Amino acid sequence: MTSFDNAADAKKLSTPPQDSRERISQFMQQLQDKICGGLEELDGKEKFKEDSWKRPEGGGGRSRVLTDGAIFEQGGVNFSEVWGKNLPPSILKQRPEADGHGFYATGTSMVLHPRSPFIPTVHLNYRYFEAGPVWWFGGGADLTPYYPFAEDAVHFHNTYKGACDRHDPEYYPVFKKWCDEYFYLKHRQENRGIGGLFFDYQDGRTFGLYRGPNSEGEAAKYSKEVGEIKPRTWDDIFNFVQECGHSFLPAYVPIAEKRKDTEYGEKERNFQLYRRGRYVEFNLVYDRGTIFGLQTNGRTESILMSLPPLVRWEYAYTPEPDTPEAELYDIFLKPQDWVNWHK
Amino acid sequence: MTSFDNAADAKKLSTPPQDSRERISQFMQQLQDKICGGLEELDGKEKFKEDSWKRPEGGGGRSRVLTDGAIFEQGGVNFSEVWGKNLPPSILKQRPEADGHGFYATGTSMVLHPRSPFIPTVHLNYRYFEAGPVWWFGGGADLTPYYPFAEDAVHFHNTYKGACDRHDPEYYPVFKKWCDEYFYLKHRQENRGIGGLFFDYQDGRTFGLYRGPNSEGEAAKYSKEVGEIKPRTWDDIFNFVQECGHSFLPAYVPIAEKRKDTEYGEKERNFQLYRRGRYVEFNLVYDRGTIFGLQTNGRTESILMSLPPLVRWEYAYTPEPDTPEAELYDIFLKPQDWVNWHK
Repeated sequence: MTSFDNAADAKKLSTPPQDSRERISQFMQQLQDKICGGLEELDGKEKFKEDSWKRPEGGGGRSRVLTDGAIFEQGGVNFSEVWGKNLPPSILKQRPEADGHGFYATGTSMVLHPRSPFIPTVHLNYRYFEAGPVWWFGGGADLTPYYPFAEDAVHFHNTYKGACDRHDPEYYPVFKKWCDEYFYLKHRQENRGIGGLFFDYQDGRTFGLYRGPNSEGEAAKYSKEVGEIKPRTWDDIFNFVQECGHSFLPAYVPIAEKRKDTEYGEKERNFQLYRRGRYVEFNLVYDRGTIFGLQTNGRTESILMSLPPLVRWEYAYTPEPDTPEAELYDIFLKPQDWVNWHK
Repeated sequence: MTSFDNAADAKKLSTPPQDSRERISQFMQQLQDKICGGLEELDGKEKFKEDSWKRPEGGGGRSRVLTDGAIFEQGGVNFSEVWGKNLPPSILKQRPEADGHGFYATGTSMVLHPRSPFIPTVHLNYRYFEAGPVWWFGGGADLTPYYPFAEDAVHFHNTYKGACDRHDPEYYPVFKKWCDEYFYLKHRQENRGIGGLFFDYQDGRTFGLYRGPNSEGEAAKYSKEVGEIKPRTWDDIFNFVQECGHSFLPAYVPIAEKRKDTEYGEKERNFQLYRRGRYVEFNLVYDRGTIFGLQTNGRTESILMSLPPLVRWEYAYTPEPDTPEAELYDIFLKPQDWVNWHK
């Protein structure tokens, strides 16, 4: 039976292996290398440039940026590994057990802004935390198209569903839903894009897959929907995160390949620049990673590397009915069951 | 002697006149009219277009936008008047006495994004709140140049110093400093521009002119710096706010007139678009008005009217030494004593 008793669940939290930090850190760097390699091959014109940096309070990272490519107007892939005395308040609210303990955090994150409005913007992030008695994994990947191609959304979701299903059939429906809820612009009443996967605070306890904002209520809600899940070890979750990381290139590259030669005009470009504004709004107002970075005195240029190279705002824009732009709003910016999509 | 005793100060809070809401609301609308008229005359090409809107929870406003003008790439001047059951948490933290009371809030705000990089972006906002036992005024105006012209900064500050001095010689030094502290991007360690005036929570109590973030400590600090000030009535403060409002056109129009015919190239335009990114970062991450609007289910299009029509981000940009761009960073994005500026 699933137990929602906190004390009992805490007891079930398994201990990470001795070399947990080394293993994760190595994986995160390899993931950065692999993704950068794949994207350079796709772009065909430009390469990533790297900046290594140290954080005065402990740790550092390597930021890689590709600009003015054939495919990518700008792309950033960032590895970081930081430690310090106490986690920031926004995280302690979700993990009060970590309060008063030093923390270790590492992760790889990526945002790509393609030049063509027909190629979606995409975001990926995987991260790992240890703080006193607790540890957890978080992350995911989500796609933000400018023009609506259902087959692209289906491909992206199917790829990640495959990665999930090889580990636990309960993962995909929960993490897909979580993604839809997380990448939501409340003030616009719009989703950021067509979603993908998102999860946070995964530590293998049966308490629930979902530990997000208002995690008490939500955890109960999701756990009930999901039903009984088997407890997972540190290695189970790490293996799953690795599989997710390695699924990125197969999930995205075919979409970019398929769309890269489609011609577009000023109208499509303008719409893309306008929609990029939503990316900025999300990242600066809601994004957990951005807020964590700014609150922990992270490297601003690396954190804000996710912002698009060129953006428009336009007062009171609404798409004209029966256009691809309207279809984006009506269908693609609302949660859809993409893996069961029927044309 | 200045007293820092909260209970004693609360007693000194004067009662607003019976028709306070009507008077302020009328002033805020007249200010919007006057500013729009002056800006249309300056622009010479385009006029403001108005949208009236209602807020489901109570109140509404009129938003006016001018786009593609000769001088202004985009300008927005917004009047709003809203009421509801309870103020949002961010304000209640500063004004706990208002908790559990209905509130009334009205204000006029403006952001102008000129086309020429030689004309500064400028922001103005005046607002008034009533909630249960408390009422207060807030607002100010601040200038964000892209290229450094000391005489423009001197003119802007001198105009507002004049407005302040006609009411209380203690106003300018306090509200100028408050402005420098408020329009500060912590993650960039930069001021947003050359400042101007900013004040909040002005209710006439001698407790201090300053009631900002960490107002306990700050109020004591500023009150000590300022020394004894005479208690002010509701009318004293309203008169001061009116004078500030009417000072905007004389503070800004001469600067725009002086710079509007200076030719510029792609380099200056690119720098302007890049610097506009800081405006976006400030408004979405720190701005009290934006956060209030989004938290109270305000009209998103009117709130985000402050965002620039076109913006660039560039990874790891730094200005070249001994250029006007470097001078902006070194001198103009740090607090300066502009009214005593010596060339």
